[in-house]
Amino acid sequence: MDIKNKNIEELEELSKEIREKIIDSVSQNGGHLSSTLGAVELIIGMHYVFDVEKDPFIFDVSHQAYAHKMLTDRWDRFDRLRQIDGISGYTRPSESKYDYFSAGHSSTSISVAVGAAKAIKLKNEDRIPVAFIGDGSMSAGMAYEAMNELGFRKYPAVIILNDNEMSIGKPTGAISKYLTKMKAGKFYQGFKDKFKGFLDTLPQDFKYAAKKFEEMFAINGIIFEEMGLEYIGPIDGHNLKEIIETLQIAKELKKPVVVHAKTIKGKGYKQAEGHFEHWHGVAPFDKETCKPLKPSGMSATKVFSDYLLKKSDENEKIVGVTAAMPSGTGMKSLMEKYPDRFWDVAIAEQHAVTSMAPLAKEGFRPFVAIYSTFLQRGYDQIIHDVCIDKHPVIFAIDRAGLVGQDGETHQGLFDIGFLKIIPNITIFAPRCFKTLEYAIDFAISYTKNATAFRYPRGAFYEVEAKPTSFEYGKGEILKESNNIMLIGYGNGVGRAWQVNKLLKKDGIEVGVIDLRFIKPLDEELLKSIQAKTIFVFSDSTKIGGVGETLEAFYVENKIEKDIISFEIEDKFIPHGQTKDIEKMLKIDVESLAQRVKEKIKL
Amino acid sequence: MDIKNKNIEELEELSKEIREKIIDSVSQNGGHLSSTLGAVELIIGMHYVFDVEKDPFIFDVSHQAYAHKMLTDRWDRFDRLRQIDGISGYTRPSESKYDYFSAGHSSTSISVAVGAAKAIKLKNEDRIPVAFIGDGSMSAGMAYEAMNELGFRKYPAVIILNDNEMSIGKPTGAISKYLTKMKAGKFYQGFKDKFKGFLDTLPQDFKYAAKKFEEMFAINGIIFEEMGLEYIGPIDGHNLKEIIETLQIAKELKKPVVVHAKTIKGKGYKQAEGHFEHWHGVAPFDKETCKPLKPSGMSATKVFSDYLLKKSDENEKIVGVTAAMPSGTGMKSLMEKYPDRFWDVAIAEQHAVTSMAPLAKEGFRPFVAIYSTFLQRGYDQIIHDVCIDKHPVIFAIDRAGLVGQDGETHQGLFDIGFLKIIPNITIFAPRCFKTLEYAIDFAISYTKNATAFRYPRGAFYEVEAKPTSFEYGKGEILKESNNIMLIGYGNGVGRAWQVNKLLKKDGIEVGVIDLRFIKPLDEELLKSIQAKTIFVFSDSTKIGGVGETLEAFYVENKIEKDIISFEIEDKFIPHGQTKDIEKMLKIDVESLAQRVKEKIKL
Repeated sequence: MDIKNKNIEELEELSKEIREKIIDSVSQNGGHLSSTLGAVELIIGMHYVFDVEKDPFIFDVSHQAYAHKMLTDRWDRFDRLRQIDGISGYTRPSESKYDYFSAGHSSTSISVAVGAAKAIKLKNEDRIPVAFIGDGSMSAGMAYEAMNELGFRKYPAVIILNDNEMSIGKPTGAISKYLTKMKAGKFYQGFKDKFKGFLDTLPQDFKYAAKKFEEMFAINGIIFEEMGLEYIGPIDGHNLKEIIETLQIAKELKKPVVVHAKTIKGKGYKQAEGHFEHWHGVAPFDKETCKPLKPSGMSATKVFSDYLLKKSDENEKIVGVTAAMPSGTGMKSLMEKYPDRFWDVAIAEQHAVTSMAPLAKEGFRPFVAIYSTFLQRGYDQIIHDVCIDKHPVIFAIDRAGLVGQDGETHQGLFDIGFLKIIPNITIFAPRCFKTLEYAIDFAISYTKNATAFRYPRGAFYEVEAKPTSFEYGKGEILKESNNIMLIGYGNGVGRAWQVNKLLKKDGIEVGVIDLRFIKPLDEELLKSIQAKTIFVFSDSTKIGGVGETLEAFYVENKIEKDIISFEIEDKFIPHGQTKDIEKMLKIDVESLAQRVKEKIKL
Repeated sequence: MDIKNKNIEELEELSKEIREKIIDSVSQNGGHLSSTLGAVELIIGMHYVFDVEKDPFIFDVSHQAYAHKMLTDRWDRFDRLRQIDGISGYTRPSESKYDYFSAGHSSTSISVAVGAAKAIKLKNEDRIPVAFIGDGSMSAGMAYEAMNELGFRKYPAVIILNDNEMSIGKPTGAISKYLTKMKAGKFYQGFKDKFKGFLDTLPQDFKYAAKKFEEMFAINGIIFEEMGLEYIGPIDGHNLKEIIETLQIAKELKKPVVVHAKTIKGKGYKQAEGHFEHWHGVAPFDKETCKPLKPSGMSATKVFSDYLLKKSDENEKIVGVTAAMPSGTGMKSLMEKYPDRFWDVAIAEQHAVTSMAPLAKEGFRPFVAIYSTFLQRGYDQIIHDVCIDKHPVIFAIDRAGLVGQDGETHQGLFDIGFLKIIPNITIFAPRCFKTLEYAIDFAISYTKNATAFRYPRGAFYEVEAKPTSFEYGKGEILKESNNIMLIGYGNGVGRAWQVNKLLKKDGIEVGVIDLRFIKPLDEELLKSIQAKTIFVFSDSTKIGGVGETLEAFYVENKIEKDIISFEIEDKFIPHGQTKDIEKMLKIDVESLAQRVKEKIKL
């Protein structure tokens, strides 16, 4: 969309249209709401001042980039947000040439800008990278590593710091505090001291108004300048005139410059404005009543959260950490009840992992509650800081398997492959809500080395077999067969169980095993299997996954088996409703039953 | 050793003894020299002021902790530094209870201190964590993530910042510049301006003297205070009185505090003082002449470096990055010749990886030259920033396999396992110096997605087969056999070849295949193998390694084979001369031949 010939009033009108479209689509499809609403004017300003046809527009995390999508080539398709074959909730170059880079994990944008700046300099082109980054993303070390180089080499680049005082949970850490301090000028400081007691007694909404008032009094920060970057701000991130004027100046500096803009999360949707975490990412909801269209149902996260809280009541050695995902991981209730034992360390997975190792060493039972995809950020730390010295840190891996609408950047498919190769770690998985509780019990009790267990987003596939507690390295036969055996791991057990039920309807009897431990393997159980044909079910990559582990086991033990793994083929899996994606991958229960039948016919 | 009753003169005497012992042992065994010499007084000060029996002493990277080892329980054993069953070159709790934590990778110490501080607070004990960190380690994001939490929560902790103005290569980045600026006070500034031209004409040694002079004029920094940490310094890190007085104050503050000490790298060994990179890590050398005791011989690193330089002369699209390892990775000569195309981004592997992706997108051919073990730090970035969008970044993985004397923290054994599970990456390996050149050629030419190739520390095992260039996904039969086949990958090909020669002496004929590609596999070649028994040779973890990949392949293709993998068993491998470690693991050529014989006898 060409917006460069519009005047301020027209641009303001446009921002309203964009917001309506965002609210329409998100209320219908679910998605990220408040961050993307807060970023509308800044993104319009970017498109007005810079040239999306040539300048790299780099969105950090990129869940705030909906306005950018509409302004480029996706206005008409935006109603299919996060649906299969529809618009991704993140920037994806595979979707549009105007998306310079894929993102989904935080704090990569400044590194991308540095790389783009290097390329531009070498090609001697008249282009400038523009990175758009939230204040929450500034807590991750990667952003700092990139600023360290950018401030040193001084490539022209504009970093728009979208400061809405939060990442996903409440703002945590010194940098967040620092950004807050920057706007607490002298005048407001006096005001605050005077009215402090009074403010604390006010209802939530009035506090929010007071917060807005606070924003008017800001002093400039110095930390960016000390890192060698120019700094402009803070500016009002909803004032288009101010935005455009400032970005124009920033563009012409030909230096690395941080433009610090204050915005209101949820801006333009009254129900969301000023409410921190609730409206970050939402399921489909009614625009008027704000109520979710479907009840959310029980989730593995909730079971984990409730049970760990119960255990923490009983055992004061239990501690834990989340990297800016208190609600997502279920750590919020624990942090609230035991603020000295459960910590949000901000978006900082590396630090989160390593900082729990000394707690394990000192006799505590630390839980790292983390999504599978974000654990990738702490990989070296698991090897180097946890496993070498056998610190019994517990990794509770949420969102393992397909995650649905977040797509490529968020799939939790790699954890089995990258963890199983590390010495001194015990890796297992529950198959249902009840065995998730047992998994927690086992993890607390097992202190010889690190442990890791995974569970899916939302609910497990149902398994109608009596839940049993975990015994180190032991799998479980749920249903015997001398002919065909389905071996499941984690949520794969439920898939296997349901496939077994479908096959039974067709008169095909198969056995079902819950492998439970991928490391160490239950060698005795595996050797005892009489069935020649084994089907493997696990929500993980086929390469390096459960099937490969079993195949290797049988070859090494010279036991001949036909093994067919139904794990995920070697591709990045796009976004879409999980049920649609499963159908696409032919790993929904019906397709799996069909695939088993085809194989055994051969 | 109890040093608390010694006076300053006695402590100074002790520091001399320690230095002599360090120089003796390192000249004999090789090891880290200049950093550890520079840290002697600070470590004596730590032991004087804090209580190693209860306070966690946390050394970052920990190659500078030799004095700590001598002061605790390893004075008499220090001559066996870095030898098998001798003293590790790093802190290892498995070696001594006075080593609180293992380290070897940088920038973990502040996270460890934060974790320890949390434990101490929960246990309500009178202890305080002391982290010892070099200025070079401050460039990695992890250090920043940890400071972000520490400055926010204000746990008592002392961070000794050992500022010798370097990590391993030259100091890079804004933070390094910032630390330098902090000592450039007004007086010196005037002096410097006046004498700038003059100074530049001086010989190296005089410049070094001028540098020392510069150190006397320092202004306090503010960046740490802005992150919520107290700051004291800079102090003279070789003045024991000043060190002890300052640490005493820091200890009593009961807050997080950075003590900034200036030290001279190589202090006390004239030949090393002030010479940056050369004396960082050294092979055994003659104390008087400084010459290495053995000629170093040709290395894969050198071949990589020379050939990439040659290709870069021909092709201006070739660019590259190192994370603070210019000499170690061979990027130094490229940075010197083409400073605009080859970058040292400081210890910042995450940023190094991601920042190369846009260069690939923009049509360049970026090489990430990195040790296998440090690539673990950029794991999420490989998946999220490189592979999802198929950016053809080239990973040149040095120190793949056993690394010898650095031990557990540095073994390059995991890269095959953690890379092969990622979609959109092509993974291969050269078997000799010449095929390493061909690997570079192939990587430059292949632009469909990311590529990664690995090569060992030092030289390859010898293969007397004509080197051939790489063809996508194609392995190579070096010697046919219908009976027993040895399949090698990377340096494993040489092992296989040499084993084949030993077996031949015993009248046993075997075939040898160079697999070349682990992803994609050469399915045609693998299917064509007539031999029933296959032995696998690769310097990688057995779990998730080459053998497992082949085992899975044959099971999936219903081809019955006996496969025996001689990859590394599921353990962290300790330090020692590579030849000693290989014998211990029974993967030296003689042991391997013996193991083959035993297997085929069965």
